[in-house]
Amino acid sequence: MEDTAMDTTAVVEEVVEVAQLSLATDFTAFTFWVASAVMFMGAAFFFMERFTVKKEWQTSLSVACLVCLVAFWHYLYMRAGYMGELSYQEAGSSPTELRYVDWLITVPLQIVEFYLIVAAVTAVSLGLFWKLLAGSLVMLVGGYMGEAEHVSHMTGFIIGMVGWVYVIWLIWAGDAAKAAAGAKNENVAFAFNGIKWIVTVGWIIYPIGYYMGYIAGDGTEVAGLNSLYNLADVVNKFLFGLVIWHAAMRDSGVSKA
Amino acid sequence: MEDTAMDTTAVVEEVVEVAQLSLATDFTAFTFWVASAVMFMGAAFFFMERFTVKKEWQTSLSVACLVCLVAFWHYLYMRAGYMGELSYQEAGSSPTELRYVDWLITVPLQIVEFYLIVAAVTAVSLGLFWKLLAGSLVMLVGGYMGEAEHVSHMTGFIIGMVGWVYVIWLIWAGDAAKAAAGAKNENVAFAFNGIKWIVTVGWIIYPIGYYMGYIAGDGTEVAGLNSLYNLADVVNKFLFGLVIWHAAMRDSGVSKA
Amino acid sequence: MEDTAMDTTAVVEEVVEVAQLSLATDFTAFTFWVASAVMFMGAAFFFMERFTVKKEWQTSLSVACLVCLVAFWHYLYMRAGYMGELSYQEAGSSPTELRYVDWLITVPLQIVEFYLIVAAVTAVSLGLFWKLLAGSLVMLVGGYMGEAEHVSHMTGFIIGMVGWVYVIWLIWAGDAAKAAAGAKNENVAFAFNGIKWIVTVGWIIYPIGYYMGYIAGDGTEVAGLNSLYNLADVVNKFLFGLVIWHAAMRDSGVSKA
Amino acid sequence: MEDTAMDTTAVVEEVVEVAQLSLATDFTAFTFWVASAVMFMGAAFFFMERFTVKKEWQTSLSVACLVCLVAFWHYLYMRAGYMGELSYQEAGSSPTELRYVDWLITVPLQIVEFYLIVAAVTAVSLGLFWKLLAGSLVMLVGGYMGEAEHVSHMTGFIIGMVGWVYVIWLIWAGDAAKAAAGAKNENVAFAFNGIKWIVTVGWIIYPIGYYMGYIAGDGTEVAGLNSLYNLADVVNKFLFGLVIWHAAMRDSGVSKA
Amino acid sequence: MEDTAMDTTAVVEEVVEVAQLSLATDFTAFTFWVASAVMFMGAAFFFMERFTVKKEWQTSLSVACLVCLVAFWHYLYMRAGYMGELSYQEAGSSPTELRYVDWLITVPLQIVEFYLIVAAVTAVSLGLFWKLLAGSLVMLVGGYMGEAEHVSHMTGFIIGMVGWVYVIWLIWAGDAAKAAAGAKNENVAFAFNGIKWIVTVGWIIYPIGYYMGYIAGDGTEVAGLNSLYNLADVVNKFLFGLVIWHAAMRDSGVSKA
Repeated sequence: MEDTAMDTTAVVEEVVEVAQLSLATDFTAFTFWVASAVMFMGAAFFFMERFTVKKEWQTSLSVACLVCLVAFWHYLYMRAGYMGELSYQEAGSSPTELRYVDWLITVPLQIVEFYLIVAAVTAVSLGLFWKLLAGSLVMLVGGYMGEAEHVSHMTGFIIGMVGWVYVIWLIWAGDAAKAAAGAKNENVAFAFNGIKWIVTVGWIIYPIGYYMGYIAGDGTEVAGLNSLYNLADVVNKFLFGLVIWHAAMRDSGVSKA
Repeated sequence: MEDTAMDTTAVVEEVVEVAQLSLATDFTAFTFWVASAVMFMGAAFFFMERFTVKKEWQTSLSVACLVCLVAFWHYLYMRAGYMGELSYQEAGSSPTELRYVDWLITVPLQIVEFYLIVAAVTAVSLGLFWKLLAGSLVMLVGGYMGEAEHVSHMTGFIIGMVGWVYVIWLIWAGDAAKAAAGAKNENVAFAFNGIKWIVTVGWIIYPIGYYMGYIAGDGTEVAGLNSLYNLADVVNKFLFGLVIWHAAMRDSGVSKA
Repeated sequence: MEDTAMDTTAVVEEVVEVAQLSLATDFTAFTFWVASAVMFMGAAFFFMERFTVKKEWQTSLSVACLVCLVAFWHYLYMRAGYMGELSYQEAGSSPTELRYVDWLITVPLQIVEFYLIVAAVTAVSLGLFWKLLAGSLVMLVGGYMGEAEHVSHMTGFIIGMVGWVYVIWLIWAGDAAKAAAGAKNENVAFAFNGIKWIVTVGWIIYPIGYYMGYIAGDGTEVAGLNSLYNLADVVNKFLFGLVIWHAAMRDSGVSKA
Repeated sequence: MEDTAMDTTAVVEEVVEVAQLSLATDFTAFTFWVASAVMFMGAAFFFMERFTVKKEWQTSLSVACLVCLVAFWHYLYMRAGYMGELSYQEAGSSPTELRYVDWLITVPLQIVEFYLIVAAVTAVSLGLFWKLLAGSLVMLVGGYMGEAEHVSHMTGFIIGMVGWVYVIWLIWAGDAAKAAAGAKNENVAFAFNGIKWIVTVGWIIYPIGYYMGYIAGDGTEVAGLNSLYNLADVVNKFLFGLVIWHAAMRDSGVSKA
Repeated sequence: MEDTAMDTTAVVEEVVEVAQLSLATDFTAFTFWVASAVMFMGAAFFFMERFTVKKEWQTSLSVACLVCLVAFWHYLYMRAGYMGELSYQEAGSSPTELRYVDWLITVPLQIVEFYLIVAAVTAVSLGLFWKLLAGSLVMLVGGYMGEAEHVSHMTGFIIGMVGWVYVIWLIWAGDAAKAAAGAKNENVAFAFNGIKWIVTVGWIIYPIGYYMGYIAGDGTEVAGLNSLYNLADVVNKFLFGLVIWHAAMRDSGVSKA
């Protein structure tokens, strides 16, 4: 009889151990909560504010909303999984795969924002749209294939970097940069520069994380990067949208600052 | 006593095995997550953007929203079922029946879009609406009856194909094609052609899946087609709506591209 | 020890048996899913479209939305109960009581639509509103009292039929019919006739179900009527609203067909 | 071994007993479902319709929405608790405390409606707002303190009655009545009179329930009052808002009746 | 065999003990419910009303909505955790960490309201925005670091107080006060003064709670402060937004009082 009783006790202790995953002492858990709430807030904010700006800017804010909304959707599961609330994920383990699903959708959405904000004030060739989309998809598919080991970690890294460098070139010197300059609109310039810097500097965290996790490291350090990813998302997703929102409000004549 | 203990252990191991259904290595699971998030995003996007286009196009975007919304609703259960989160479905099994419920509703919605986008700019006979609806329903009821074995697999396939061919004829040469041409509106022409190609090429995946699963195969290969169905839905439901949205934005004078 | 093991096995088998309630072979389960999704879709559609029609018609579409929304709310529980997901309902059993809650709310909502669509284009006495409401409430309270055995099945049936016949009279020859004719508006006439036929022909299913279940039968056949109820709801709730929506779009000058 | 088996059986029987809490035979359960659905419907209705009336009336309808929304929120838990779905509440037991939370929020919201509907058409002193709010809070805090035994049942009752009588005086003869008369607007008069009668007659159920439960009775009869409370809420919350909505639609020139 | 039976009994008794956490006798539980419902109501109210005020004020109300929405999100978990509904939190324990996540987001949102309401009527330097944001973040990060023991409790307290004093100075005498005075708008003055007093007086509860819990006390008294925090949130979050809403309605010409 004692075997059964002990067996039961073991299960109970495991549950208690999960309960030890404290928000006060586990900084990563803390950042999962923060990022979840900021994504929720961002989705609600851009949804409401899109109705305030003029029609030409509404799609840009709709997309800013979608970025936070899709991220919130995945954070619901990522946070719950990390906290040990999901039956099929161990508490404290890294939800890297869900991040890839999120990135696969939100990153192209953000990259096409470069097109959308310029298109809000002037006519831009749809070709630019497709170039930006293609660059961002190469970046992500490379990363996913390396991570899932369909190709070697290094091959996936190189493919992904090619896509990223192409996007960087487009927005600093290529067609996107030229289109933005051609718009001759100070609000577009403000937003374009703002998100250009976020994509260039803020997104470095993602290839660094990949490199440290899969090439320099052995795939286990990725878990340690979760806090960094969570805080980076607050900047790279919410602040990203906020920059566009500010330009939209000024260009619509609502905000004077 | 050991019998009980072993019994418990077996259950635990089964749970662990479910946990093995990893997003990183199970590509099908990955596509279930992607399709769910894209459907969610699409529903939110078309909902917001409908308020930006002019009134004549708003119903078209409402319907584009409904297609993604209804699909999202079913993907909530399809993804959860595949992941093993639902008590009455085995992890990794195929939720084909839920797909049929989804198709039964979303496919007619999409087919009547051919009518709605033309009706946005010119008067069109309601007769065309009913023809498109009838064709799509024949297509689906045939498929369902064959799949549920109310008729033989081949009979269901033939009935379904008759409906599909009729719809294809309507949009390439019949009343729908004529109405679109008669509208003499470049934006309607753009959207009509876009969704015509999606229905013609993109939807081939559905009869192929049926044929391979039930006629060439024995009903078990259907599971292997899930990734294909999931990715096809991203194109056939979200991109489908995006084409209509683009035409609506241009025809409303909001987008210049 | 084996007793315990067997006991556990019995529970597992029961769960598996629930899992047998397959969407592919259980047509009733299939219709529960279809009706749920259609109600969800209808609620979302009429919610969005109400902002497109002119103010006089917006309340009519709000009410069309409410009918589907309240039905969706109850279908959430009816579908889950039938599928065996709720702890207090056996899989495959009939959720007749929840249908009564739904009918008690949605049927009066629909009956007052006769008043609302006429009031959208002309001044109508509030007296008509109260007559329609009273008729529909008599119809439902009779049915509920008979079903819950507060009165005999036959007495409840007769009370309910009196209410129904009164409503039928109002909309075919009485005050409602006169008010509709007096509006001299082809769109109101279209919608009024459409929902008049739905109430007259489509709703016959409900007294038939009651009669067969409680008077000709013994209260157990009701379960077999669930598919019929589910499909009838698609027509009687969603199509009902669609007829009103079509008239509203034409009368608002948005739709030309 | 049999002990364990019997133990398991006992649990199963308890679950089955919960299942006996049938909607068909338990009228109180039936009213919990009805009230929940009506509150949901009311929240959705007033939310939609607020966008149809003119700006001056929109806040009145927002508040009508909030009353139903907050009530719906609490009914989610009250219904579930009564049905035995919540782990910490016994099936069939009375959720009186949750009602107090609901009343503490919704009752002041309703009382300030007297101020809001007059303020929609004329300038009214904010002092009236504070008097109405104060009266309603005295009414509720008295009731809560008596119910939670911070003061004696009778003391709590007397404090609560003082607040209620003060509100009644305000709306029949005091500042609120004078402000309404001064507005010289037939729609305001209609709404003011309608909700005045609801507050005067319809709300009597609450002090009666308290008196019977805690002063004449011993605190256990309260459970029997749940059906009455549920049906009273349908009138006192939904019909209350409907009266205001009707006046708002007429005063905005949308409704002609 | 009896050991197993007893084990089961122990579990059942624990569940029953949780059930003892009664809303009627546990005032803290009562305030968790009240605060949750008020936050829900506030989010819905400011969301609806933002569409009523003029564009310049809409962002202020969007932010008022976000404050309540983010708080509601966290209260969902804080209330559930306190009630013992979450597997990883003991019933009756204090959810202090979740409060910090909430404050980290909602406090800066509120502080930037000082900027937003002035910016609604006149051009204000973005520098003020950054000063207010910086002050509020210093206040919160200091508190969090002390609470999580990254620095000593006293050091964290001092850092936090520096941020708070800086914000107080900004709104009473510094740039914010000057900008508000410069706007020469009585509605802005009303709102600015209202929220200035709330931040100065109402927020004192937070440093007092920290001081009593971690410096004067030993970290366990914090639990006793939960009722106070919950009721303070009703004032500091909902009333805070209401003051801004009132000014916005008057400045938009909708409200006359």
